[in-house]
Amino acid sequence: MDIPFGGAKGGVTVDPKHLSERELEKLTRKLVQALKDVVGPTTDIPAPDMNTSAQVMAWFFDEYSKFSGFSPAVVTGKPVNLHGSLGREAATGRGTVFATRELLRATGAGQIADKRFVIQGFGNVGAWASEIFQEQGGKVVAVSDAFGAIYNEKGLDIKALRKHIASGTALKDFPEGEAIDPGTILSIPCDVLVPAAIGNVINSDTAESIDAKYVVEAANGPTTPEGDAILRKRGITVLPDIYTNGGGVTVSFFEWVQNLQNFKWEEDEVNKRLDRVMTESFGHIWEIAQQKKLPLRTAAFVKALQSVTRAHLHRGFD
Amino acid sequence: MDIPFGGAKGGVTVDPKHLSERELEKLTRKLVQALKDVVGPTTDIPAPDMNTSAQVMAWFFDEYSKFSGFSPAVVTGKPVNLHGSLGREAATGRGTVFATRELLRATGAGQIADKRFVIQGFGNVGAWASEIFQEQGGKVVAVSDAFGAIYNEKGLDIKALRKHIASGTALKDFPEGEAIDPGTILSIPCDVLVPAAIGNVINSDTAESIDAKYVVEAANGPTTPEGDAILRKRGITVLPDIYTNGGGVTVSFFEWVQNLQNFKWEEDEVNKRLDRVMTESFGHIWEIAQQKKLPLRTAAFVKALQSVTRAHLHRGFD
Amino acid sequence: MDIPFGGAKGGVTVDPKHLSERELEKLTRKLVQALKDVVGPTTDIPAPDMNTSAQVMAWFFDEYSKFSGFSPAVVTGKPVNLHGSLGREAATGRGTVFATRELLRATGAGQIADKRFVIQGFGNVGAWASEIFQEQGGKVVAVSDAFGAIYNEKGLDIKALRKHIASGTALKDFPEGEAIDPGTILSIPCDVLVPAAIGNVINSDTAESIDAKYVVEAANGPTTPEGDAILRKRGITVLPDIYTNGGGVTVSFFEWVQNLQNFKWEEDEVNKRLDRVMTESFGHIWEIAQQKKLPLRTAAFVKALQSVTRAHLHRGFD
Amino acid sequence: MDIPFGGAKGGVTVDPKHLSERELEKLTRKLVQALKDVVGPTTDIPAPDMNTSAQVMAWFFDEYSKFSGFSPAVVTGKPVNLHGSLGREAATGRGTVFATRELLRATGAGQIADKRFVIQGFGNVGAWASEIFQEQGGKVVAVSDAFGAIYNEKGLDIKALRKHIASGTALKDFPEGEAIDPGTILSIPCDVLVPAAIGNVINSDTAESIDAKYVVEAANGPTTPEGDAILRKRGITVLPDIYTNGGGVTVSFFEWVQNLQNFKWEEDEVNKRLDRVMTESFGHIWEIAQQKKLPLRTAAFVKALQSVTRAHLHRGFD
Amino acid sequence: MDIPFGGAKGGVTVDPKHLSERELEKLTRKLVQALKDVVGPTTDIPAPDMNTSAQVMAWFFDEYSKFSGFSPAVVTGKPVNLHGSLGREAATGRGTVFATRELLRATGAGQIADKRFVIQGFGNVGAWASEIFQEQGGKVVAVSDAFGAIYNEKGLDIKALRKHIASGTALKDFPEGEAIDPGTILSIPCDVLVPAAIGNVINSDTAESIDAKYVVEAANGPTTPEGDAILRKRGITVLPDIYTNGGGVTVSFFEWVQNLQNFKWEEDEVNKRLDRVMTESFGHIWEIAQQKKLPLRTAAFVKALQSVTRAHLHRGFD
Amino acid sequence: MDIPFGGAKGGVTVDPKHLSERELEKLTRKLVQALKDVVGPTTDIPAPDMNTSAQVMAWFFDEYSKFSGFSPAVVTGKPVNLHGSLGREAATGRGTVFATRELLRATGAGQIADKRFVIQGFGNVGAWASEIFQEQGGKVVAVSDAFGAIYNEKGLDIKALRKHIASGTALKDFPEGEAIDPGTILSIPCDVLVPAAIGNVINSDTAESIDAKYVVEAANGPTTPEGDAILRKRGITVLPDIYTNGGGVTVSFFEWVQNLQNFKWEEDEVNKRLDRVMTESFGHIWEIAQQKKLPLRTAAFVKALQSVTRAHLHRGFD
Repeated sequence: MDIPFGGAKGGVTVDPKHLSERELEKLTRKLVQALKDVVGPTTDIPAPDMNTSAQVMAWFFDEYSKFSGFSPAVVTGKPVNLHGSLGREAATGRGTVFATRELLRATGAGQIADKRFVIQGFGNVGAWASEIFQEQGGKVVAVSDAFGAIYNEKGLDIKALRKHIASGTALKDFPEGEAIDPGTILSIPCDVLVPAAIGNVINSDTAESIDAKYVVEAANGPTTPEGDAILRKRGITVLPDIYTNGGGVTVSFFEWVQNLQNFKWEEDEVNKRLDRVMTESFGHIWEIAQQKKLPLRTAAFVKALQSVTRAHLHRGFD
Repeated sequence: MDIPFGGAKGGVTVDPKHLSERELEKLTRKLVQALKDVVGPTTDIPAPDMNTSAQVMAWFFDEYSKFSGFSPAVVTGKPVNLHGSLGREAATGRGTVFATRELLRATGAGQIADKRFVIQGFGNVGAWASEIFQEQGGKVVAVSDAFGAIYNEKGLDIKALRKHIASGTALKDFPEGEAIDPGTILSIPCDVLVPAAIGNVINSDTAESIDAKYVVEAANGPTTPEGDAILRKRGITVLPDIYTNGGGVTVSFFEWVQNLQNFKWEEDEVNKRLDRVMTESFGHIWEIAQQKKLPLRTAAFVKALQSVTRAHLHRGFD
Repeated sequence: MDIPFGGAKGGVTVDPKHLSERELEKLTRKLVQALKDVVGPTTDIPAPDMNTSAQVMAWFFDEYSKFSGFSPAVVTGKPVNLHGSLGREAATGRGTVFATRELLRATGAGQIADKRFVIQGFGNVGAWASEIFQEQGGKVVAVSDAFGAIYNEKGLDIKALRKHIASGTALKDFPEGEAIDPGTILSIPCDVLVPAAIGNVINSDTAESIDAKYVVEAANGPTTPEGDAILRKRGITVLPDIYTNGGGVTVSFFEWVQNLQNFKWEEDEVNKRLDRVMTESFGHIWEIAQQKKLPLRTAAFVKALQSVTRAHLHRGFD
Repeated sequence: MDIPFGGAKGGVTVDPKHLSERELEKLTRKLVQALKDVVGPTTDIPAPDMNTSAQVMAWFFDEYSKFSGFSPAVVTGKPVNLHGSLGREAATGRGTVFATRELLRATGAGQIADKRFVIQGFGNVGAWASEIFQEQGGKVVAVSDAFGAIYNEKGLDIKALRKHIASGTALKDFPEGEAIDPGTILSIPCDVLVPAAIGNVINSDTAESIDAKYVVEAANGPTTPEGDAILRKRGITVLPDIYTNGGGVTVSFFEWVQNLQNFKWEEDEVNKRLDRVMTESFGHIWEIAQQKKLPLRTAAFVKALQSVTRAHLHRGFD
Repeated sequence: MDIPFGGAKGGVTVDPKHLSERELEKLTRKLVQALKDVVGPTTDIPAPDMNTSAQVMAWFFDEYSKFSGFSPAVVTGKPVNLHGSLGREAATGRGTVFATRELLRATGAGQIADKRFVIQGFGNVGAWASEIFQEQGGKVVAVSDAFGAIYNEKGLDIKALRKHIASGTALKDFPEGEAIDPGTILSIPCDVLVPAAIGNVINSDTAESIDAKYVVEAANGPTTPEGDAILRKRGITVLPDIYTNGGGVTVSFFEWVQNLQNFKWEEDEVNKRLDRVMTESFGHIWEIAQQKKLPLRTAAFVKALQSVTRAHLHRGFD
Repeated sequence: MDIPFGGAKGGVTVDPKHLSERELEKLTRKLVQALKDVVGPTTDIPAPDMNTSAQVMAWFFDEYSKFSGFSPAVVTGKPVNLHGSLGREAATGRGTVFATRELLRATGAGQIADKRFVIQGFGNVGAWASEIFQEQGGKVVAVSDAFGAIYNEKGLDIKALRKHIASGTALKDFPEGEAIDPGTILSIPCDVLVPAAIGNVINSDTAESIDAKYVVEAANGPTTPEGDAILRKRGITVLPDIYTNGGGVTVSFFEWVQNLQNFKWEEDEVNKRLDRVMTESFGHIWEIAQQKKLPLRTAAFVKALQSVTRAHLHRGFD
C-alpha cells in the first residue's frame, strides 16, 4: 500500500529540494497523470516518505480527482484539514510506545512508569515517542539529534524541550539538561534504548557498549546483522523495526478507511485502534517466539509470511 | 452537497402543488434522466427543500439507480424505511437546542434548564426545538404559528400541544395556555427568543421591542441587517442561522455516510454525532469572535471562509 | 443477497463431492466468469450453502477480483483470514440463542438460566447454540446427531462434548452422558426444544409426542403444516425458522458491510450488533402477533411483507 | 446476432397484436431496461422477427441509448430514416435470387434469363424475389398467397401484381393471370420452385408431385426430412434455407457495420456486398458438396461447423 | 454536432485576439476540463468557428484525450496532419460550386462552363469557390474584399490572384484586372452573384440594383427578409445559405467518421462524397419546392423539419 | 503500435520453443492478465514477432476479450479466419516489390519487368517478394536460404520452387536450377540485390564484392554503417529497411482498422491500399533526398522525425 515517490530507485533522480514550490507542484501533477491508471483507492495507495510532505499528497489527491472524480482515498498522509487523519503525525512515535509497553509486560519487566529511556534521534518519531513515554511516567534521561545530545538523570521535560527546539534553538543548548557527546548516546545506561534516527547505528563497533535491557527499533534498520548477533549473545532483547515502527502505516490505513467512509474518526478513536493493532500484533509475534524459541525479529518474519501465505493459499493459483 | 430542486431560480417554474402524485413522479424521473450525469454519490447530492418531500427523494433514488445501479447515496432526506437516517426529521430542531446550550454555557448564562424560551413558528423546526428545550428543563412560555399564538407563564406542555395539533385542532385553541396576538410574539419577555418561521421578521420595526437576552436564529434569514444592527447596539447576542440551523444538512451528511457504508446508525448515535458537530463548530466560532472581537455572525463567516480557503490552498490552482 | 450456488434447482447438477479440489476450483472460476456481469457488491452477493465452503467463497472472490479489481464484498462467508467476518461461524447458533431469550422474556417465562433444552442436530448450528445456551446458564439435557443421541439430566458439558467429537469419537459414546435412542429425542421433556437438523421432523406423526413449552426452529423447515397445526392446538409456541435462524445471513450482511468499509469489526462488536438485530426483529414480530392475534410464524410473514411492500411503494412503479 | 423477441419460448406470452401502440412501446422499453446489461453493440444484437417491426427496433434503440449513450448498433432492422440500412427490406428476396443464379451457373443450367419460376408465398420475401427474378429476365409463371394463386404461362408482370395488391385487391383477382387452386402450386411444371411461405410444405404427401429441377428454399424449413429424401431420390436439387434465405441477416450485419462507422452505404453498395457474400458462400458449400459427395444441405452444415470449430480451436479452451 | 466556442452567447467574453498563444492554450485546456463530461465522440462534437483555429482544435483533442484516452473524434476541424480531413479547408467553397451546378442544371440554365460569376468576399469560402468555378470553366468577372474590388470582363485568373494576395499585396492592386469601387460589386451584371462575406448585404437598399439571374448564398445570412422579398418579386432565384454553405459541416462530419474508423480518406473520396451529399440534398429541396410551389429557402426549412420530425416520431416520447 | 512480446529485453527470458503448446497458451493468458490495463484497441496494440505466431495472437485476443468484451482490435497478426486480415502474410514481401518498383521508376531505371534480382533469404519475406517480382516480369536469378543457394540465369520458377520446398525437400536441391555456394550470393551480378534474411550481412568484408545497381533492404538492418559507406562510395543506391520492409506493420494497421469497423476488406483492396502507402511514402522520402542532397536512408529518418515533431507541436506541451 505504500509507494514512496519522494526518492528514486533507478532512473533519473530529481531532488525535490532544488525545486521551487511551483515546480514541485507541476512535477507532482505530471507524475499523477502518468501513474493514474496504476494507482487508485483499491489498487495501490501512495503515502509520503522522505522528501515528500502532506502538501505533496494534497496535490496528488487533487490531480487524481480530476480524472477519477473525488477520490481522497487514493493517497494517505494528506493534511488533516484536507481528508487527512487525526493522530497520523504522532502515529509512529505512539506506536513505538505501545510496542514498548507490551514488551515490558510480556517479559515481566513491569510498566513504562518505572523505566529509564534513551532516545537516539529527535525528529518526528523520536520526539513523539519521548513525549508519550514521559506522559506515561517514563523517564527519558537522554536524547540526541544530528548535532548534539542532552542528558538529565531525573528525566528530561520533553514538552519543554520541544518548545525550546520549536523556538529555533539547538537541542544541545536546552538549559534543563546537560549537553553530552552524541557519540556516547547508545552507551548510556538505561532500561530501554530507542534508536529513532538512521540505519546501521548498532553494529559490530557499538553493540558491545550498549547498556540497556531492551532495544526498541523505532528507526528503519538501526541494527546490522553483526550488531544483532552481539545483542542476542549479550541477552539484550530487540524489538524489531518491522513491527515497532508500523504505527505510521497503520494510521495511513486508518486514513484510507476514513476516506472510503467519508467520515472522520476522533483522535481518541484513532489512538485506541492503533493500540489494538499494536497489541494484537505483539501477541502474535510473542506467541511464535515462545513456541518456536525464536528471537522476536525472526518471529515477526514468520508471522508476516504466515499471513501472506495463508491468503495466497486461500485465493488459489489459477 | 445540497441542491434543492423544489424551487426554481430562472427558467420555467412548475408548482408541484398543482401536479397530481403521478405527474410529480413522472416529472421527478424525467429530471433525474436529465441530471444523471451531473449528480452522483461523489459529485453532487441533492436533498429536499420547500415543495419536495421524502417521497420525491425516494423516486429520485429509484430512477437514478436504474442508470447507475443501487445508489442510495445519490440523494438524502429519503424515507427512514428506504435508506433514510434515523433522527433526520428532528435534526434541525435538535441542532438548534445544542447550539443554544453552547451559547448559554459560553456566555456564562448557565443551562437550558433554568431558562424561558419563546418560539416563533411551530413547523418541523419550531416544534422539535420546543419539545427538546422542554425535555432539557427549559420553559417554553410562548409559541406561534401562521394563524395564532399561545402563552403559558409556567411553560407549555409541548408534547400535549403537538398531540393537540396532530388531532387537527388549531394551535391557538390549545386549552392549556392562553391565546395571544401572534403579532406580539417577538416582544414577549424571555431569555431566548427563537425565530423559527420565515425571513426578515426581526427588522427595523420590531428589533427595538424584543425583550430577550439571546436571539437564536432557527429560521433562514430571520433578521435584516437593520434589525441586526439594532440588536447589537442593544447588547442582545444573536446566534446566526448559518450555524444554528445546520443540523438538517449535518444529518443529511450522516445519511450519506450511512448509505456509503450500507449500514444504519442507531438514533442515539446520530444525535450524539450531531451534538459533537454543533459543539465543535460553536467552539471554533466563539474562539474567533473572542480573538477578533467580532459578532458571532461575522465570526461564523470568517470560520467558513477559513475552511474553504485552506482547502483551496492545499489543493492548489493548476 | 443470498444466492446459494452449491445446490441446483434445474439444469445439470454436479455433485461437488465427486470433484477433486483442483476440479472444484476450476469449476468455481468458470462459474464466476459466466456470472460476473450479474453479481457484484451492489447487485447480488452470493454466500455459501450446502456443498460449498469458505474456500469456495475465497476462489469466487479471487476470480471476480481479476475482472473488477479488489472486491471482497462480492461474496460473503469467506475465510476469516481472507476478509471474512469474525463471529460468522457461530452466528446462526448465537442468533438462535438471542431469539430464544427474547421469546422467554416476552412470554414471561423468564431467562435462559433456569431452563432445560433439547437440541436435535449437532452440526454447526446445533453445537454453537448448545454451547451458548450453556454459557448463559441453560441446561442442555439432550442432543442428537444423525448417528445417535445422548442424555444427561443435569445438563451436558457442551465444551467437553465438542472436544470429544473433535477428537474423532462418536457423539453417542460421550462418557459424561447416557446414550439414548435418537428417535426419542423430540419427546424428551424440556422447556425448549430446538430442532437444528433437517426439515419436516415435526409432523403429524411426532407433534403429539413433543413435551416442551417452546419449539425454536433453528433448522430450515423442521415443522410441517400438519405438525404446526397440532402444536398450535396443544398450546406450544413455535418460533419460526424464517426469523430464528437468520443469524447467519445477518452476519453475512455484516461481513459485506465490513468489506465495503475495508475495516474489520471485533468479535464483540459483531455479536452485539447481531443481538440488536435479533432483538429488534423479535419486537416487531411479537407486536404484530399481539395486535393481530396471529401465531408468530404468520406474524413474521406479515412483517416481511410489510417491509418489502413499503419499500416498493416508496420507490414507485415506473 | 439474432435474438428474436417477438415470439416466446417458455414463460408468459404476450401477443403483440392485442396491445395498443402505446402498450407495445411501454412493453418494449421495460424489456430493454431488463435486457440492457446482456445486449449491446459488441455483445448481442437483436433484430426483428415475427410480430415485431422497424418501429419496435426504433424504440429499442431509443431506450437503450438512454442508458448507454447514442448506440444505434445495439439493434438492427431499424427504419431507414433512423439508422437503418438501405436495401434491408428486399435483402432476403434479393439474396434468394443471387443464390439461385449461383446454383444455375454451378450446375451448368445457365442463367435466370431463360428459366421458369414458381413462387409459393407472396409476402416480403416472395414478392421481392419474384420482382428481381423478373428484372433479370426470368419468367415467374405462378405465385400464391394464403388465399389464392395466379398463373400466367408467359410470365406474370410482378410490378403490376404488387401494385394491384398494394391497392387492396386480392392476389387471386389479378386480371393479367388466371386464378388457380393454391393447393396445386407446388406441382406446376417449372425450372425452379421457390417455397417462400411457411414450413413443412414439401413433405411425404407433396414431394412426389413436384415438377421442377430445383427447389430453392426461401422459407424457413419448407421441406420435411421425408420430403427431402424423396426429392433427393428423384434427382431434384435442393438449395437449403440455412444458406438461401440468409440475405436478411447479412444485411442486418451490414446495418450494424454502418452504425459502428456512423456512415451510411448507398443501396448499390449494399446490394453488391450482399452479392459477394452470397456468391462466396455458395462457392464454399458447392466445393464441399463436390469433394465429399454430399447433398447441398449437408454441405452447408459441414461448412458452418467448420467455421465455428476453427474459430473455437484458435481461441482455445481456457 | 457543432458547438462553436470561439464566440460567446451570454457570460463573460474573452477575446482570443488579446491572448498570447500560451494563454489561449491554457484557456482551451481549462475549458476542456470543464466540458469533458458533456462533450464526446457520441455526445457533442465541437468544431471551429470565428476566433478559433485548427490549432485550438488540436489542443482540445489533446486535453480531452488525457481524460478519455485517444479520442480524435471528439472535435473536428483539426490540422490535416493531426487527424484532420483532407479537403476540409476547401469544403465550404467547393460545396457552393456543387450547389450552383445543381441549381443551373435544375432550372435548365445549363452548366457552370458558360456562366459569369461575381463573388463578394475573398476569404476562405470566396477564394475557394472562385477557384473551383474557374476550374470548371466559369468566368469570375469580379471579386471584392473588405478593402477593395477588382474586375475583368474576360474572367479573372483566380490562381494568379490568390498567389498575388498570398505574397502580401492588396487584392485591389492585382495587375490583371481593373480596380473598382467595392460598393458596386453587387450590381455588376452576371449570371450568378455569390455573396460570400458578411450578413445582411442584400437588403432593401441594394436588392433592386442586383443584376443577376441567381443569388447563391455562400455567406451566413447575406439577405435580409426585405431583400429576399424584393429578389423574389423580381424573379431572381435565391439558393439559401442553410443549404449552400453546408459543405464545411459536411466535411466535419466526414472527419468525424474517418476518426471513428481511424482511417483517412483520400481527397478525391472526400470531394466525391461531398458532391453526393450536396446533390442529393438539392434534389430533396427542389422536389419540395416544385410540389408545394415554395421558394427554395422555405423548401429547405420544410425538408429539415421533416427529417427531424420523422426521427422524433420513430424514437417515441417516453 | 507494435509491441513484440516474443523476445525479451531484460528480465527473465522464457524460450517459447521449450514450452508445450499448453504451457505457451497458459503463459500467454497470464501475460494478458498482467498487461490488460496497459494495452487496448486505442492504447497499445501488440503484433507477432520472432517466436510468436498467429495462434499466440488468437489466445491474446481471446483472453483480453474476457475482460473487455469482444475486442479483436487489441492485437494484430491474428489468423485470417479469426479476424485477421487478408493479405497480411504476403505484406512485407509485397511491400518490398512496391518499394522496388518506385525506386526503379524514380531513378529512371525503368520497370521490374526487365530486371534481374538476387534474393538472400527465402523465408516469408524473401519467398513472397521473389514470387511477386516474377509475377511482374522480373527475373529472379538466384535465391539462398540458411542451408544453400540456387541459381538459374534465365530466372527461377518461384512458384515451382516454393512447391518444391513445401514438399519437404531442400531449396538447394531444386532441379530447375544450379546449386551454388550460399557464401557467394551477394556477389552475383544483378540489377537489384534484396537482402531478406538476417542483419549485418553487407559489411566491410562483403560490400566491395556486391555487383548490383540497387540494394533493397527487406531484412532488418542487413547493412552495417561501414558497409553502407562503401556502397555509397561505389554509387550503389540503398533503399533503407525502415521504409522497405514496412509492409507488414502497414497491413497490421489495416487489420486494426478492419477490426474497428468489424468489416473485412477484400484482398485486392488490402493490396491496393498497401501500394498507395508504399508509393506515397517513397515520394516523400525521394523528395527530401533530392531537395536536401541526402542518401535515402537519411531522408527516411528526416521524414519520420518531421511527422512526429509536427504532431507534437500541434498537440502542445501542457
